[in-house]
Amino acid sequence: MGWCCDVIQELARRRVSARSFRTGGVEFRAIAQILEVARQAPSGANRQPWKFIVVDNPKLKSLVRKACEKGEEEYHSRAPRWMKRWMRKRNISPIKPFLTQAPYLIVVCADTGAPYHIQSTWISIGYILLAAEEMGLGTLTYTPSSVSELRKILEIPEKYSPEAILPIGLPTGGKRKRRRSLKDLIYINRWGKAGSVDI
Amino acid sequence: MGWCCDVIQELARRRVSARSFRTGGVEFRAIAQILEVARQAPSGANRQPWKFIVVDNPKLKSLVRKACEKGEEEYHSRAPRWMKRWMRKRNISPIKPFLTQAPYLIVVCADTGAPYHIQSTWISIGYILLAAEEMGLGTLTYTPSSVSELRKILEIPEKYSPEAILPIGLPTGGKRKRRRSLKDLIYINRWGKAGSVDI
Repeated sequence: MGWCCDVIQELARRRVSARSFRTGGVEFRAIAQILEVARQAPSGANRQPWKFIVVDNPKLKSLVRKACEKGEEEYHSRAPRWMKRWMRKRNISPIKPFLTQAPYLIVVCADTGAPYHIQSTWISIGYILLAAEEMGLGTLTYTPSSVSELRKILEIPEKYSPEAILPIGLPTGGKRKRRRSLKDLIYINRWGKAGSVDI
Repeated sequence: MGWCCDVIQELARRRVSARSFRTGGVEFRAIAQILEVARQAPSGANRQPWKFIVVDNPKLKSLVRKACEKGEEEYHSRAPRWMKRWMRKRNISPIKPFLTQAPYLIVVCADTGAPYHIQSTWISIGYILLAAEEMGLGTLTYTPSSVSELRKILEIPEKYSPEAILPIGLPTGGKRKRRRSLKDLIYINRWGKAGSVDI
């Protein structure tokens, strides 16, 4: 039997995190298709703890960006010196232009009352990333440093936790980051026991 | 432009959680292919916080099963009466035959020192589920109620948290669980504002 998962492998390998976008060019229908995939994800006790707020209103995107950048600035200013150096080296700044550039933001919220709500919700985010890649759309999993303002702007109730903001759109760049080799990640039967992992 | 993600959609819709397996019939190469996909997942600061222990040794699977069932029994006995009823109704018991039936268990561990290690690791689990589905292999995301014994058996260091055990193999059944409709999950621009979500 020929074991293969060529399509998923191709999509997973091709995908890069997008940090800049064309502002338009995507129909809402594409976002709905992607979320149609997300809702199929398995979840703890089948509670399907996710809600997706699709933000395309420019004023709201602007408010979301401002709130997030304020949170990032506070985070950056509180960071220890080594972390500031680390972030500077990687060009990580509190400025998040993708939050207004991308035609859509999907704000993914998780029902904190459901078992394994974080785990389940991030499986569904994994599904979203691959579905968007199949469509040729770029995505980023941005996790805001502070969500209190975001909650107010989007009227997210206390019970739900905003897990991530996923800007989605036609990407205008993005660099592939290196991955560790498979044999550094697989152990056979016990921690630390490497096996032959030719694929 | 025709927006579509038919392949991912088909896989996501087709997949059901497998709780029983044929004991053999899967080459190790298939597992390596699946983990080749998992390692492509994005992660916080590209730390790739995951390690995968592939357990195929029958004695070890047996020990893992015993340890997990012991943890489940303790969990069940401590559960409040309503939860016991809830579990009985759903045939959820402390007995986990799939842990010895499945030809492989992938024990997914996350480096607790990496930022967003849980989130990143569960994206990679989402990738695994779809890759296995493309191969026609069944999977389950089993989260043990207690991991202290599991740690000892597989020699998992303190720094790593066992996030899930994924039995993988040829499934011998599995029922599709209902999903909520898309329009119950999507809000437009603000919490609670439904939109038209024809896809």
